[in-house]
Amino acid sequence: MTDRTSILLASRPEGAATENNFRTRQDEVPEPGTGEFVVRVIWMSLDPYMRGRMDDAESYADPVEVGDVMEAGGVGEVVASNHDGFAAGDIVTGQFGWTTHAVSDGAMVRKVDAGAAPLSAHLGVLGMPGITAWTGLNTIMGIEAGQTIVVSAATGAVGGVACQLAKAAGLRVIGVAGGAEKCAYAVDTLGCDACVDHRAAGSAKDLSREIAEAAPDGVDRYFENVGGKTLAAVLPRMNVSGRIALCGMVAWYQGRNMDEAIPLPQVWGTILKKRLRVQGFIVSDHFDDFPAFLKEVTPMLREGSVVAKEDITEDLENAPKAFLDMLKGGNFGKTLVRVGPDP
Amino acid sequence: MTDRTSILLASRPEGAATENNFRTRQDEVPEPGTGEFVVRVIWMSLDPYMRGRMDDAESYADPVEVGDVMEAGGVGEVVASNHDGFAAGDIVTGQFGWTTHAVSDGAMVRKVDAGAAPLSAHLGVLGMPGITAWTGLNTIMGIEAGQTIVVSAATGAVGGVACQLAKAAGLRVIGVAGGAEKCAYAVDTLGCDACVDHRAAGSAKDLSREIAEAAPDGVDRYFENVGGKTLAAVLPRMNVSGRIALCGMVAWYQGRNMDEAIPLPQVWGTILKKRLRVQGFIVSDHFDDFPAFLKEVTPMLREGSVVAKEDITEDLENAPKAFLDMLKGGNFGKTLVRVGPDP
Repeated sequence: MTDRTSILLASRPEGAATENNFRTRQDEVPEPGTGEFVVRVIWMSLDPYMRGRMDDAESYADPVEVGDVMEAGGVGEVVASNHDGFAAGDIVTGQFGWTTHAVSDGAMVRKVDAGAAPLSAHLGVLGMPGITAWTGLNTIMGIEAGQTIVVSAATGAVGGVACQLAKAAGLRVIGVAGGAEKCAYAVDTLGCDACVDHRAAGSAKDLSREIAEAAPDGVDRYFENVGGKTLAAVLPRMNVSGRIALCGMVAWYQGRNMDEAIPLPQVWGTILKKRLRVQGFIVSDHFDDFPAFLKEVTPMLREGSVVAKEDITEDLENAPKAFLDMLKGGNFGKTLVRVGPDP
Repeated sequence: MTDRTSILLASRPEGAATENNFRTRQDEVPEPGTGEFVVRVIWMSLDPYMRGRMDDAESYADPVEVGDVMEAGGVGEVVASNHDGFAAGDIVTGQFGWTTHAVSDGAMVRKVDAGAAPLSAHLGVLGMPGITAWTGLNTIMGIEAGQTIVVSAATGAVGGVACQLAKAAGLRVIGVAGGAEKCAYAVDTLGCDACVDHRAAGSAKDLSREIAEAAPDGVDRYFENVGGKTLAAVLPRMNVSGRIALCGMVAWYQGRNMDEAIPLPQVWGTILKKRLRVQGFIVSDHFDDFPAFLKEVTPMLREGSVVAKEDITEDLENAPKAFLDMLKGGNFGKTLVRVGPDP
């Protein structure tokens, strides 16, 4: 059999994760058991939520155990199958992990239309980040033409799709991103009406003033990916009856930037006085919406009204470094690892 | 003409309000102008929101100006009218202020059915506190039989109605109140399945443990009136997809108990991981629902399935002291001032 490479959680991080928390394992690709199949992974996704799985803390998903393969979504090709629903040659997406070859029983695995788009799109615009953006906008917040929305981490995998879908729905879209290059991309490529650079803005107050200038009618919807200084800046700009979809809080992952948290009584007071609705969501609760989402967004990707920026790292062994860079905001677009060649 | 007594905002509080922030004015009862009528106030309501109106801060309502009559809801009798819609002898409720006689043009004034219940009920169970409870439960959170709800300030004007309506709707109701007497009342009279004493519980952690014991299946709905330690205690007990109706935060009014605020990243993390929905509301946005609310709750009051506890202070001149006591939790039930005799 072919060799298989996998990356395991070697130890739980104390504070910030480091490359020492990961280790590489080489073994043989197993044969599929009854009702199982083997996937050769082509693309692997790196996402901020994985940091949470490294901790042994109560969360919406069980942590990765020390010594187990790290979790990740992937796209791959079925190379051997004892499963009635999947045959060699099928292109599939699922939670295959940080590995070159995964054994699956088909749970949570979807066959994808290999001709619909480049295969990596099934990890981005047509995959979990895409349906996350679509769910936050539609199911969680409800958006209407003419409203103003702020999208944080606007050039990230989720934010980038959120900006484009909101723009296509007729909203005024204000991106928040880190650095001039990302902001230019948000406006020029993603179609944001404006983008505010949270790195150039010194304080939350400065950032808030810039958001006010970009959103003269106030902010009706906030797609929250970051927390931290950006939240402190957006909150005072929210309009009465505004809504916030709480999708992530990457600024606060790993215990960073805790000093950028405004006091809870102030937040609670704003929610009360402005009658805001703040709702957290986890996209896996909404996977039943995949057909409706794909029906709407696949044509947009084909026509070019939605574009995908990808930040590609070559080879699985470079995944830990790419993952840690992403947590610090070093990525630009959807972070992907090319694990193997296209079929 | 008869003498009129009014209580004015004498100065804005610096920190906690004191009796020195109020002063009494004596003048004559004016004649109603064209399209106006004069109300002799019988009952006046004291509510925590009035503290906010004393400050010159941005809020959902304009502040009371220094030298103006303090705002309050009241029930009274029309004693003179040049208004086509209101005649002498009508019993009405509206924002008449801290005064024995108010001139009104009819804006936001409702005639009430004087035979439906004791007149004071129109400031309590059948008035703003009642519709506040009803709106929080039904419009904001949505409640279902079999769920578990926590109601803070459970024996307050709003909380007391919320407990009883939730119980009547088939929920398990956990009250939170301050002191053994209030807790006994919550269970014995309001019908709560359990009541937790936030004064007896030392820390938020202790309080949280007691809530966990009272809510073995976790908490699905939280009617939030207080913030502070109680919020810190309830939040970890919320179930996935739980909802919080944010109606008040009396623990944090006047800048008190700020040390009882848990860090925002922790709150944001809980909202995210548990997919909570937190929604602030202001009851005046929902006054169109008064007919539906009265249709449901008036029979419940008459049949005794909803009871009203009133904390009555005699005479308008005692209103400042009663108001300040209420802010400290010294009231027990709906705080009312008897301004004049029944007709």
